Amino acid sequence: MMLDGALTGQGTLALPRPHLLFLGDATNPLDAKTAMGLRDWRREDCLGQLRLPGCTVDLGLPEFDLERARAVGARSVVVGVAPSGGAIAPGWIPTLRRALELGLSVVGGLHDRLADSPELAEAARNYQAQLIDVRVPPAGLSVATGARRSGKRLLTVGTDCCVGKKYTALALTRALRQAGASATYRATGQTGILIAGEGIPMDAVVADFLSGAAELLSPANDADHWDVIEGQGALFHPAYAAVTLGLIHGSQPDALILCHSAGRRVVDEYEAYDIPALSYCIQHYEAAAALTNPAARVVGISLNTRDLDDAAAEASCEVLQRDTGLPCLDPMRHDPAPLVNGLL
Amino acid sequence: MMLDGALTGQGTLALPRPHLLFLGDATNPLDAKTAMGLRDWRREDCLGQLRLPGCTVDLGLPEFDLERARAVGARSVVVGVAPSGGAIAPGWIPTLRRALELGLSVVGGLHDRLADSPELAEAARNYQAQLIDVRVPPAGLSVATGARRSGKRLLTVGTDCCVGKKYTALALTRALRQAGASATYRATGQTGILIAGEGIPMDAVVADFLSGAAELLSPANDADHWDVIEGQGALFHPAYAAVTLGLIHGSQPDALILCHSAGRRVVDEYEAYDIPALSYCIQHYEAAAALTNPAARVVGISLNTRDLDDAAAEASCEVLQRDTGLPCLDPMRHDPAPLVNGLL
Repeated sequence: MMLDGALTGQGTLALPRPHLLFLGDATNPLDAKTAMGLRDWRREDCLGQLRLPGCTVDLGLPEFDLERARAVGARSVVVGVAPSGGAIAPGWIPTLRRALELGLSVVGGLHDRLADSPELAEAARNYQAQLIDVRVPPAGLSVATGARRSGKRLLTVGTDCCVGKKYTALALTRALRQAGASATYRATGQTGILIAGEGIPMDAVVADFLSGAAELLSPANDADHWDVIEGQGALFHPAYAAVTLGLIHGSQPDALILCHSAGRRVVDEYEAYDIPALSYCIQHYEAAAALTNPAARVVGISLNTRDLDDAAAEASCEVLQRDTGLPCLDPMRHDPAPLVNGLL
Repeated sequence: MMLDGALTGQGTLALPRPHLLFLGDATNPLDAKTAMGLRDWRREDCLGQLRLPGCTVDLGLPEFDLERARAVGARSVVVGVAPSGGAIAPGWIPTLRRALELGLSVVGGLHDRLADSPELAEAARNYQAQLIDVRVPPAGLSVATGARRSGKRLLTVGTDCCVGKKYTALALTRALRQAGASATYRATGQTGILIAGEGIPMDAVVADFLSGAAELLSPANDADHWDVIEGQGALFHPAYAAVTLGLIHGSQPDALILCHSAGRRVVDEYEAYDIPALSYCIQHYEAAAALTNPAARVVGISLNTRDLDDAAAEASCEVLQRDTGLPCLDPMRHDPAPLVNGLL
C-alpha cells in the first residue's frame, strides 16, 4: 500500500531516503505506529527494519544492521517507535550515535528532541550528519480567530488513540481524489508528517495556540476543496482530550468520521477508562464541533478490523451501521467510497 | 483587599518587591488583568503604576516614572498587561530597558519571554539586572495518568475568559480557611502565579502534557484537604477551550464553581460567539468533568457584578439562583461562604 507521491502537494521536509526503520526494544505494536505508518504509506522509501535485543515488534521488512543498510543505500534511520510520553530511551543512543558516525541522518518524531541529546548532538557535529526532528511546531503560532473560512473540511476523530484516524484520513484523501474531488491530507502528528512531508505536530504545540495551529494547518481554500485532517487523541481520553478539542475547534470540520477499533472496550493503557458507546461519542463530537461549525456532522464510521477475519469484519461493520444509521466500513479492507460519497 | 501571605504555603518564586506595575499603552481594562490582580490581592507589594502615552487604563494607584519609583524603593517592574496572544509590544522595550539600566528587575508573564528579547537580554547582562519570566512551565512534565488521588478539589470554570475565575478561587480559598478547612490556592496563569508565588502556567504547557500538568499542580493530599484550582478559558471559547478541558480532566474536581460576568452576552473579543445559557454551561462542564471524576458537580455560581449597583447585583444573583437552583453570589461583594458551606 503506497501513498500517491503528490498527495499533499509540495512537501516542506527534505527527508533523506530510503529509510532504515528503527524499532528499539519495542514490545507493544501500538508503540510502533510511526514505523508502521511509513511501511504502509511510504513502502517504497523503507529499506528495512533494525531491532534491538528484546524487540518483539516485527514490521515484516528485511532486517538490517546499520553497516549493511548503509552499504545498500540507506540514507537515514527513522526512530519508528513512540512510547507513551515521547521520551528517547537511553538504550537507543549507542545505535543512533553509530548511525550518525556512518553518515546516516537520524530522523525523530518524539517529544524528546534528538538535537537535545548531548551525545547525539555531539556525534552529529563530529560526523557532519543530520539530526531531523519533525515534532517541532512552526514558530510564530497565534491564538485562533474563530472566523469561518472557505473550503470544506473533514476531520477523523476517534473513540481512543491508535484506532486508525491517520490511515482513515489518508485513505479518504485518496478516495476523494479518485472520485474527482480536490483534496489535501493534513498531517497533525509525527507519523503523518513523515508520510506527507509536511504538517503541524498538534500535541507539541503550546496549549494556548492549539486551535490557532489547527486554523493555520487547513487555511481558506476553494469552496469545493476538501482538507482531510488527521485527528488526534479522543474526547474521552483522560490525558489527550484537550488536544482533540483544540484540533476540532480550529479545524471547523464540516464532516467528521468516527474511527473505532473493533473489540476495543477500554482506553489503551488506561484500563480504568471505558470507551463510551458509539452513539455517545457521535453526540459529543458533534456538540464539540458545533461551537465553530454548527453544521458539523459525523457522516460515517471507520472500523479498524485488523484482528478479525473477513466474515467477522463484515458482521462488525453491519452491526455498527445498524446501530448508528451511518455507513461503516474498514477503509484498509473495503472500498472507502461509501464514507465520502455523501460529501460530493 | 489583600491576600493572606501564607495562602499558598511556601512560595517558589523569589519576586523582588515592592513592584511598579507597568501598563504599557493599554486601552482595554481586560488586558490589564495581571496588574489588577496584584493590586487587588497583593496591594502591600504594589508601589504604583507606570503608563505610556495613550494608556487609558487606570489602576487608581499613584503614578510613578522609573526614576522616582526607584528612589522610593521599587525593586521590580511587573509587566501588568497581557494582550490577547501574549506578545511584548515593541513600544514597551525602551521603558523596560531603562528599568534594567536603573537596576530594577523586570517581571513578565506573557507568552513572549522577556529573556527572548535580544535588547532586554543584553540590557539585563550589561546592568546585572534580573529578567523574571513566570509563564514558564516546569521541566519534565509528563502525560496524565488518569489515576484518582486523595484529597478534595474545587475548580472554578467560566462562561468566558475574564469573568472572575481567579478572584473566585482566591476568595473561596480564604472562605474555606475561615470556615476551618485546610485549603490551598493553585495558580494556573501568570497573574495567579505572581500573586501566589507558585503555580503552573497551563496555557504555556505543551498540549500533550496539559492534563498531566494539572495532575502535578494538585497532587494527592489529606482526605479533607481542598485544593482550590484557578480555572482557565472556557469550554465554549473558540480559541481556549482545549486548555480548559485539559485542566478539568487533570484536576479531577469534586466541585466546580461556574463564573459568569453579569450582562456578558458574547465571548470577549469573539463577538460572533454567543455565551450559552448557564444551564447549558453547567450540563457541559459536568459532562466534561465526569470523565475523570463521575461525582463532579457544579455547586454554585460566582457572578461578577462589578458594573452593577448593589440592588442590580442582588437582583441578578437572585435570577440566576432561581434559574439554576444553585447558590449565586459575587464573592467580591458578598460573603462567599454560601458557595463553600455545602462542601464542609
